[in-house]
Amino acid sequence: MRIGVLGGGQLGRMLGLAGIPLGLEFRFFDASAEAPALAAGELVCGSYEDAAALQRFAADVDVITYEFENVPVQALDLLATAAPIRPGRRALEVSQDRVNEKSFFAEAGVATGEWRKADTLEELKSAAAELGDCIVKTRRMGYDGKGQMRIKTPADCETAWNLTSNGGLIVEKVVPFDRELSQVAVRGVDGDIRFWPLVENVHKDGILHTTTAPAQGVAPSMKRQAENMIRSVMEMLEYVGVLTIEFFDVDGSLLANEMAPRVHNSGHWTIEGSVTSQFENHVRAIAGLPLGHAEARFASVMINCIGAMPPAPAVLQHDGVHLHDYGKAAREGRKVGHITICDEPPTGESLKDKVEHLERLVEEARLIAAKG
Amino acid sequence: MRIGVLGGGQLGRMLGLAGIPLGLEFRFFDASAEAPALAAGELVCGSYEDAAALQRFAADVDVITYEFENVPVQALDLLATAAPIRPGRRALEVSQDRVNEKSFFAEAGVATGEWRKADTLEELKSAAAELGDCIVKTRRMGYDGKGQMRIKTPADCETAWNLTSNGGLIVEKVVPFDRELSQVAVRGVDGDIRFWPLVENVHKDGILHTTTAPAQGVAPSMKRQAENMIRSVMEMLEYVGVLTIEFFDVDGSLLANEMAPRVHNSGHWTIEGSVTSQFENHVRAIAGLPLGHAEARFASVMINCIGAMPPAPAVLQHDGVHLHDYGKAAREGRKVGHITICDEPPTGESLKDKVEHLERLVEEARLIAAKG
Repeated sequence: MRIGVLGGGQLGRMLGLAGIPLGLEFRFFDASAEAPALAAGELVCGSYEDAAALQRFAADVDVITYEFENVPVQALDLLATAAPIRPGRRALEVSQDRVNEKSFFAEAGVATGEWRKADTLEELKSAAAELGDCIVKTRRMGYDGKGQMRIKTPADCETAWNLTSNGGLIVEKVVPFDRELSQVAVRGVDGDIRFWPLVENVHKDGILHTTTAPAQGVAPSMKRQAENMIRSVMEMLEYVGVLTIEFFDVDGSLLANEMAPRVHNSGHWTIEGSVTSQFENHVRAIAGLPLGHAEARFASVMINCIGAMPPAPAVLQHDGVHLHDYGKAAREGRKVGHITICDEPPTGESLKDKVEHLERLVEEARLIAAKG
Repeated sequence: MRIGVLGGGQLGRMLGLAGIPLGLEFRFFDASAEAPALAAGELVCGSYEDAAALQRFAADVDVITYEFENVPVQALDLLATAAPIRPGRRALEVSQDRVNEKSFFAEAGVATGEWRKADTLEELKSAAAELGDCIVKTRRMGYDGKGQMRIKTPADCETAWNLTSNGGLIVEKVVPFDRELSQVAVRGVDGDIRFWPLVENVHKDGILHTTTAPAQGVAPSMKRQAENMIRSVMEMLEYVGVLTIEFFDVDGSLLANEMAPRVHNSGHWTIEGSVTSQFENHVRAIAGLPLGHAEARFASVMINCIGAMPPAPAVLQHDGVHLHDYGKAAREGRKVGHITICDEPPTGESLKDKVEHLERLVEEARLIAAKG
């Protein structure tokens, strides 16, 4: 069985590494001939507008998935007759546009903060006036904190209006959250759903910095709330594969921020920290195989490596540390790898101490990349 | 950094899958264009006599290793100037010949059963007369129970003599063992050594059937004995990488049967069951990186899939089961995959029950392959 993956970044690479042991083969589609996923399968290079390249990619592929939510839906339409596309077109369409996404959340009974859409500068100004402290974001193509701006005074609206270039803006009231959590779950072809535990995420400069799994202090009611919300989204979309919803925890209640119709950075800890990783379960789901348990094996902390990898010998001298180098060239602000530290035997050095040492190594590498 | 691996079987495939997350690239050398390792790197096809193919393989490789102990040492000699070869030539030479191996064990202070070499039919007959119940094996190229025969009566000697074709025989007194254990360990460039726990192996028709890890009822003295013996072998060989010694447990004391200068089938459980897998630690060792902890995370049982893979949906419907399909065509007696079952959370169905169900699935597939 051959899996076609649109996108050949680190998510594709890790999907391949998880799926090869199941006896599956992978083909990736990416604009770059040096895409990280090259290590785990064939690579077809092309743009999403290149119908011939898409056809080469889709030849002899049994199922198609995506690891990048900005794949144009037109590309999916070109592939629609080649093989089943999982998750489907609608999941991509909903999550590509922040206004559609928030409207969909409302339909699905998923609570969010207050928001308005703004197609004109006038609408932007009146939304900002109504909502008070708010963030303006492009409806489309924003990621890792790009394409967004905080509005503090009415004058900021003029500057924020310049963000818009492809399809309007959304204005979101600032949510005074206690922390950010995310829920990763997977749904199979047969409707079976597995939930990984809620995890806590810390962002730095708009980019995920650490994930702590499982999140501490999650009341059973909050766990239920998160699982019910993601289940509702999955069932409405007849979703197949891994889905992630990022939440704000506001006084013990969850407000959804956004969703990603794919494996997610806040689920990387699952490779070592849970019984079945998000990558393996995504592959199992789209291949029509039974899903695996999503329980945590141990407490884990994932640290993202941004800009440049810390030196492998320095990282690996700490025991119980799992290094993931995506094989990408160093560049400021780029996700080039991650490190997962598990509270697994032997427990000499504490998880906290290990995390502190490794955060220091990761920060040194980030600063070197930032200096160029 | 690029790792060159002589041999492109499942061991190479799993070395690649373990090393890619460390940011390493792999190139394999194998006679078959469909070698399982193809999924995890480049493949150079050729025979070990083909100097030009070996040179293509070795170009731009930073270190060379082998996953197959019957690589001719002449091939290593052709590669000697291209990159460091780890483990070295001597480890290969010793383990390729059962007489050299047993002599080396004696030098290293590693206890074995009684044995004699036999270069003529006369020597074979007199060895058999001296040793009583014994097994005759070819000195070279035997594996998975091939190239050997039990001698029960003097008349069997004539038949056994026909085994010899390339370099004589060894005659080994039958050891009345209680069980078979193996010790897998890894040594780094700096001499650091890590030991996985002793594991218990059950063979069927000369092929490894199951490994139970850690082995039950291992006294501290036996653990020390195993670790001291493998340490002694590694230090004498200035060994770098993973080494395995298979032992007989005779009344709580260990007698070495044979060694393998590579990752080993009885170490496959380490992928999920230990903090650092044998594959990752082998790669770390030969790449000059620090070694990782080799402690067990949970009790695990590995079952080999022989002949044909059981259907993935049937296997994966059991929770906490880790499937490894090597992507090989079905063929009677061939190792085509393995399954590891870990005693990890949630612990609904017992480890023993899961193992029984899966052994049944594996046996059904084996029988289908055996019928053709």
